[in-house]
Amino acid sequence: MSYKDLSTAELTALKVDLEYELAHYRSLDLSLNMARGKPSTDQLDLSEGMLTIFKSSQDLFAEDGTDCRNYGNLEGITEARRLMAFLLDDHPDNIIVGGNSSLTLMYNQIARFYDFGARGSKPWRKYDKIKWICPVPGYDRHFAITESFGFENIPVPMNEDGPDMDEVERIAASDECVKGIWCVPKYSNPGGVTYSDEVVRRLGFLKCAAHDFRIFWDNAYCVHHLYDEPENQDQLIDIAPMCKASGNPNRYVKFASTSKVTVAGAGIAAVASSSDNIAEFKERMSIATIGGDKINQLRHALFLHDGDGVTEHMKKHAALLRPKFELVQRKLSEGLEGVGECSWSKPNGGYFVSFNAPKGTAKRIVQLAKQTGVVLTGAGSTWPGGNDPYDSNIRIAPTLPPIEELEMALDVFCCCVKIAYASKLLGHDE
Amino acid sequence: MSYKDLSTAELTALKVDLEYELAHYRSLDLSLNMARGKPSTDQLDLSEGMLTIFKSSQDLFAEDGTDCRNYGNLEGITEARRLMAFLLDDHPDNIIVGGNSSLTLMYNQIARFYDFGARGSKPWRKYDKIKWICPVPGYDRHFAITESFGFENIPVPMNEDGPDMDEVERIAASDECVKGIWCVPKYSNPGGVTYSDEVVRRLGFLKCAAHDFRIFWDNAYCVHHLYDEPENQDQLIDIAPMCKASGNPNRYVKFASTSKVTVAGAGIAAVASSSDNIAEFKERMSIATIGGDKINQLRHALFLHDGDGVTEHMKKHAALLRPKFELVQRKLSEGLEGVGECSWSKPNGGYFVSFNAPKGTAKRIVQLAKQTGVVLTGAGSTWPGGNDPYDSNIRIAPTLPPIEELEMALDVFCCCVKIAYASKLLGHDE
Repeated sequence: MSYKDLSTAELTALKVDLEYELAHYRSLDLSLNMARGKPSTDQLDLSEGMLTIFKSSQDLFAEDGTDCRNYGNLEGITEARRLMAFLLDDHPDNIIVGGNSSLTLMYNQIARFYDFGARGSKPWRKYDKIKWICPVPGYDRHFAITESFGFENIPVPMNEDGPDMDEVERIAASDECVKGIWCVPKYSNPGGVTYSDEVVRRLGFLKCAAHDFRIFWDNAYCVHHLYDEPENQDQLIDIAPMCKASGNPNRYVKFASTSKVTVAGAGIAAVASSSDNIAEFKERMSIATIGGDKINQLRHALFLHDGDGVTEHMKKHAALLRPKFELVQRKLSEGLEGVGECSWSKPNGGYFVSFNAPKGTAKRIVQLAKQTGVVLTGAGSTWPGGNDPYDSNIRIAPTLPPIEELEMALDVFCCCVKIAYASKLLGHDE
Repeated sequence: MSYKDLSTAELTALKVDLEYELAHYRSLDLSLNMARGKPSTDQLDLSEGMLTIFKSSQDLFAEDGTDCRNYGNLEGITEARRLMAFLLDDHPDNIIVGGNSSLTLMYNQIARFYDFGARGSKPWRKYDKIKWICPVPGYDRHFAITESFGFENIPVPMNEDGPDMDEVERIAASDECVKGIWCVPKYSNPGGVTYSDEVVRRLGFLKCAAHDFRIFWDNAYCVHHLYDEPENQDQLIDIAPMCKASGNPNRYVKFASTSKVTVAGAGIAAVASSSDNIAEFKERMSIATIGGDKINQLRHALFLHDGDGVTEHMKKHAALLRPKFELVQRKLSEGLEGVGECSWSKPNGGYFVSFNAPKGTAKRIVQLAKQTGVVLTGAGSTWPGGNDPYDSNIRIAPTLPPIEELEMALDVFCCCVKIAYASKLLGHDE
């Protein structure tokens, strides 16, 4: 049984009830937000010890004696590179630790390739049109970067094991103007998908028309499990060995940050790539900076220590996030029972649940929710240019609100979904 | 009386003595550095209180309630913008606070103009050749930025009141490919020159062939006086009102940082410009970052408070730097008495003394010093491309070494100057 099996009379009656329910929510003057993947206050509190870690100037020296307060050290201090190597599944020698944002590192890397080319290749600015592969649903800020440089973002469907590799292979081989792909390979934004070994292998062995094709491997949720038991954690294999094995050792650029490990606005970000790429990146970076904030690097290294330290710390995040993600599952299952044509992801990690509403209703749902005081990520934002051709995908970000607020926001959300779907079936154009 | 008045026999005898002296220095196995404008350890210690300022998570909220740990706030927190407005002689509304490096802000701004143009103008990448005015001697990292984008750096002489404005006016009017000028308007690097009111006025009223000409106003040493008494402090008028008065309100972009106020590697940097420019910059920045490190912004605001706080703090730096700069003056005066053809700046602030050696000797001096264990900034580095056509200018950076080391380094330096000059006069090509 689902809405589409109901008669017009039944649907009309149902919609009256739903609108009555929504009017009730509206009367509550809600102000709830499920829009962005921000950590909650109690998650931020987990890193209090990091922000109060230094007691005197004596504490401000790196393990090799570097005074972290002074200029220098383009690639970052040793202990921070080691820490980020754990997140990036790589060797510390292949790591550059940058500022507080992996997004900035990605933007800068696109900008450098655009202005100067990649390892001697023709600068991308010299092409009439650069094309970029964008698995969808995906991360709006990724798409915005490539769009801002005038690239044509080409959507490719995400499957349950990663991007549709047949499509990726076809597009990459079709045109030397296709220069790269955005990937969030683990607990993807928003679908929570982790790329299968086979998908990673096929990406590494991709036959590209462009010899300077680059895989932007944004491992934003590399250690962001919701469950402590290994059987409930996704595993991702490293892209680097695959690219090496295929004879394309410079094809990948990996990114990560501690934004959702320690504090979102004042973490440390890093890039990992082949030694040749790292040498190129450092040469370019040396014109733009003398080095990142080494004091913040040292804070992180002293607070998190090592891989084990990160793992233990992430369990504390998981304990706070798990009830929220489980609430989303419960509320959607209960609230949308018997509605039909809705589906959503059940991720083992990351920051989002990807919701597929009945086609043609996502914009209406987001609008109805907004009118009721619940802000969702804009409908379409998971597609390049904000254009979801099915008007279906909505990203639910349950991490920021306290759980009582989340519960109310999800009630409102389900009500909006049902109204929008009923309206669609009734042919109402509101 | 000077070296050039000596007979060959006198010079030869003198040179033997000098080389004996240098051999003595060499035997000491020195390792001294007067190369880069780094603060000394005791200067860094002045900001210990900033790095230990937070005692708990409760301290991490900005005055408007913003949780500085979370994402957001592209332009920086209010109190940090107010602080940087003092350094930048502007209104907080016209300020964006960025990461830890004003150099990065400058690089990014050049890159954005290059890729996208300035306020709708033709992107600079679309010109065959962009030209950029570079007052010399100047800052090597400035020149490196414009050089890295393929610009032609055009040297213009620095006078005692700023760049030679007749030359600047001639070049700016000559060609629409001339898109800007590097300026360190106060206590310039390396000459310690502060632009006169008339020079600032002429810059603001510059007639440019390019309508998108941009003055990069790097006020790196805005509060970096060596003396507390106003009569021994240089005063700089603001470029902004001049540009507005001339009908070119978007012509200037001002930069500053706290790198040499608090700690060199972990300060905060900011840009100030017209409201139209700031709107443009924010729009571009929003693609590359969610915002700077607000926690570090808050540290700075709480530690320095306001303009008065900055002024008091800078007096402590001055107390540490003054003896070093006075030692440079004394050592050069004494050590080079009766040599001739040498001159040097006597700045009231900043980080450098600009030394003009006898023409054709600078490279040799730096080489001799290096062989004796004293590292100087590379000869020529104060000119675009590292090419000082006179082989004369050397930047002396006295801030980093402890005063005893500085004294020894200056003895070595004077000895090297004298040997190189004597060799030149003798026609020796060593």
